[in-house]
Amino acid sequence: MLEIFTSELVGTALLTLLGTGVVAAALLPKSKGFDGGWVLITFGWGFAVFAGVFAAFKTGAHINPAVTVGLWANGQPFFGGTDEIAEVPATIANASVYFGGQLTGAFLGAVLMFLAYKRLFDDEAPAAAKLGIFATGPAVRSYGWNLVTEIIGTFVLVFVVILFGSTPTELGPLAVALLVVGIGMSLGGPTGYAINPARDLGPRLAHALLPIKGKGSSDWSYSWVPIVGPLIGGVLAGLAALAYI
Amino acid sequence: MLEIFTSELVGTALLTLLGTGVVAAALLPKSKGFDGGWVLITFGWGFAVFAGVFAAFKTGAHINPAVTVGLWANGQPFFGGTDEIAEVPATIANASVYFGGQLTGAFLGAVLMFLAYKRLFDDEAPAAAKLGIFATGPAVRSYGWNLVTEIIGTFVLVFVVILFGSTPTELGPLAVALLVVGIGMSLGGPTGYAINPARDLGPRLAHALLPIKGKGSSDWSYSWVPIVGPLIGGVLAGLAALAYI
Amino acid sequence: MLEIFTSELVGTALLTLLGTGVVAAALLPKSKGFDGGWVLITFGWGFAVFAGVFAAFKTGAHINPAVTVGLWANGQPFFGGTDEIAEVPATIANASVYFGGQLTGAFLGAVLMFLAYKRLFDDEAPAAAKLGIFATGPAVRSYGWNLVTEIIGTFVLVFVVILFGSTPTELGPLAVALLVVGIGMSLGGPTGYAINPARDLGPRLAHALLPIKGKGSSDWSYSWVPIVGPLIGGVLAGLAALAYI
Amino acid sequence: MLEIFTSELVGTALLTLLGTGVVAAALLPKSKGFDGGWVLITFGWGFAVFAGVFAAFKTGAHINPAVTVGLWANGQPFFGGTDEIAEVPATIANASVYFGGQLTGAFLGAVLMFLAYKRLFDDEAPAAAKLGIFATGPAVRSYGWNLVTEIIGTFVLVFVVILFGSTPTELGPLAVALLVVGIGMSLGGPTGYAINPARDLGPRLAHALLPIKGKGSSDWSYSWVPIVGPLIGGVLAGLAALAYI
Repeated sequence: MLEIFTSELVGTALLTLLGTGVVAAALLPKSKGFDGGWVLITFGWGFAVFAGVFAAFKTGAHINPAVTVGLWANGQPFFGGTDEIAEVPATIANASVYFGGQLTGAFLGAVLMFLAYKRLFDDEAPAAAKLGIFATGPAVRSYGWNLVTEIIGTFVLVFVVILFGSTPTELGPLAVALLVVGIGMSLGGPTGYAINPARDLGPRLAHALLPIKGKGSSDWSYSWVPIVGPLIGGVLAGLAALAYI
Repeated sequence: MLEIFTSELVGTALLTLLGTGVVAAALLPKSKGFDGGWVLITFGWGFAVFAGVFAAFKTGAHINPAVTVGLWANGQPFFGGTDEIAEVPATIANASVYFGGQLTGAFLGAVLMFLAYKRLFDDEAPAAAKLGIFATGPAVRSYGWNLVTEIIGTFVLVFVVILFGSTPTELGPLAVALLVVGIGMSLGGPTGYAINPARDLGPRLAHALLPIKGKGSSDWSYSWVPIVGPLIGGVLAGLAALAYI
Repeated sequence: MLEIFTSELVGTALLTLLGTGVVAAALLPKSKGFDGGWVLITFGWGFAVFAGVFAAFKTGAHINPAVTVGLWANGQPFFGGTDEIAEVPATIANASVYFGGQLTGAFLGAVLMFLAYKRLFDDEAPAAAKLGIFATGPAVRSYGWNLVTEIIGTFVLVFVVILFGSTPTELGPLAVALLVVGIGMSLGGPTGYAINPARDLGPRLAHALLPIKGKGSSDWSYSWVPIVGPLIGGVLAGLAALAYI
Repeated sequence: MLEIFTSELVGTALLTLLGTGVVAAALLPKSKGFDGGWVLITFGWGFAVFAGVFAAFKTGAHINPAVTVGLWANGQPFFGGTDEIAEVPATIANASVYFGGQLTGAFLGAVLMFLAYKRLFDDEAPAAAKLGIFATGPAVRSYGWNLVTEIIGTFVLVFVVILFGSTPTELGPLAVALLVVGIGMSLGGPTGYAINPARDLGPRLAHALLPIKGKGSSDWSYSWVPIVGPLIGGVLAGLAALAYI
């Protein structure tokens, strides 16, 4: 139990440390990566996934509650079930531990990012930029359509991740990293692609709690969208993959 | 038959969902990826291929009629023919099923993209940009030369895909993804590189049928170029590879 | 002999078709990739190498005279020498066939690029840009220092290529492709990184012979630098690797 | 001993030749890569790592004192210990040879970069840009926070490198290359990510000693940060990985 919790925590912490970090690099005015644009942000998030997946090797590297519920809906164990690795069955108890590790890790990763960028946060930047480093937000606010966008993006992520095993490669964690780069480039335009409830909620909590100079609202009114959308998308992907394979 | 249809449909739907999505990200003014440029668009299309190829694993992942006719011209079965996988022979009936799945999938992928970007399509953008998200168009209209460009681009795609098997790697779907990135970067300048009849026709149909605010013409007068050019290029590549290997 | 000639010709033709193509995409004003910048150009050239290496699988994919002379200086055969593949020994006769295929292919690839971009070449663009699509040129003309730059860049290419075999990977042609991206990004600033005599001379000949609207000089006074520099760099790399491994 | 020294020297020389080279490409006004931005610089440094790791294959390719101390803290030998490769135990003597090779190589790589860009250095450019090509510097000077940033970035590097072995891939040196791209994109904003004492100190020495036109101070007052921070981060990562795996 503790091993699961720790593995998902460490992997998700690396994910949000690097992932929110690249947004900080692009949005904080004195950063050397300032104004780096969407190519920078989407590749940066992809390599954040790359690092996080290596780190969470003991638990199948979900580092995303949408993956956890997607595997569950797909009828798979959360991890293992081979000769070498004992099975971690899909149960409410195990799911809770996965979720707990993911959310805690996502929070801690954002705190570490804040420390890495502390002096740049102390300088002037729009409050919206400072929030945008931590949490996603819609280009145009429209809860229904924002939800649709998050459902579609997460569906692609979880569906293709479940299908990875059907095609031989030796890319390892690079496959999911590049898939996330692609989803970000292509489907991130309307909502900034949470596609992961922990990735959004953990850093948003960090934004709310940390002493960030000149920060504004943490926009809790939007916060349910990047939780509910990815969970729906993950479940739909698990079911679709079950019917498809 | 249904399995072939479905596999190509799902793969091609992912291709155009992500592929047209990255153009939407770059061209719709309120998108977070707005003005992302050619590097964004070409990498985005490449990762769209990456996802689509994983999804169409049951049929050799043509997801492109030009690949289907190229293998045909090359004298290969469409898929399989090994101990593990039954052969899908190159016949008119099978080709029709491949084409049907590809075109249907390409249409559905563009519809999903439209849903993901619905609120951003509701805002102002030039009609040419809104069409450009769905379908390719020439930088300078000149049907003959546009055709030449599409023939050359598709020739490179299908020729190198057929040659992949001669060099050992474990890149899997990443090889064709990066090849498409390269063709887009290098040969996409004059026509926006359809290099795939389904990729252009399916989304163009979606553009014609969907209730897109402020859309203009679907430019059917150009639509034959990205069909005929890639088919010619694919056949020439299949024949050239036959002589070459 | 003919097989060697054809293999190097086809591989080098793909190299310069895609490689000069990405420069056309970035420099011709109406191109969809116009103003794509150094990231576009360097990745595009890398993926051009990627395609070319797959295509020249029968000859070890030199597609570059500097690689040929580097292997020669290193004491290796040009290709093969294993149980499966007969050895192509390093001889003057074989080297001539390699060089002939490389130069002919590099010329033909540039001609194909010209056809793909024909209508865009018919429009206005600075003569320097039109030459820059085909051949390299110095940022600051200084034959001695330009030569040093080309020697260093080619040294890195050939030295690391010879060392590839010492580290296990399954990247195949992607390894050399990414190495070339890196050399271009890092050492391409002063001269546009020919690092390959055929890549420069073949397209420069095409520039001189093709009916390009508004073209200026083919700058033959500089043309010896991207021939002599890469050959020196390749030989030095072969000798250094011999001492090092 | 000499073999260790040479291997680390050659690998680190390639690292800083290409790594400082991409900064020169981006910052020197007449360079063809001028104004290439953060995406160019971060990918360029990643491919510099890629080349350097291939070159230092005889010693496990530390090419970074922070990796050396990280493995030490982790309780691993510096290299080998398998049937095929004799163990290089973690001792003060061996560490000194690793460090010596790394620092010498980093210095020589920067000298080679200077030669490759010599004519462009002879032209006007801000002294800060000319220093920034060689050595890192803070976006906002604050030694404490700059140190924190370097500790966190290096921690991620060394921690994930130690964990690589737990997940099967065939990426070889590409894994660490892409990890460094990711760290640069995400955590490089505040300090320019030395994450390697030799990478900063060697080129800074070169800056101090070389006859660079119009150069200013080598900013020795900052130079301890990119030495101390990475060493702390490397040790912490080695200890954390020991507890974690």
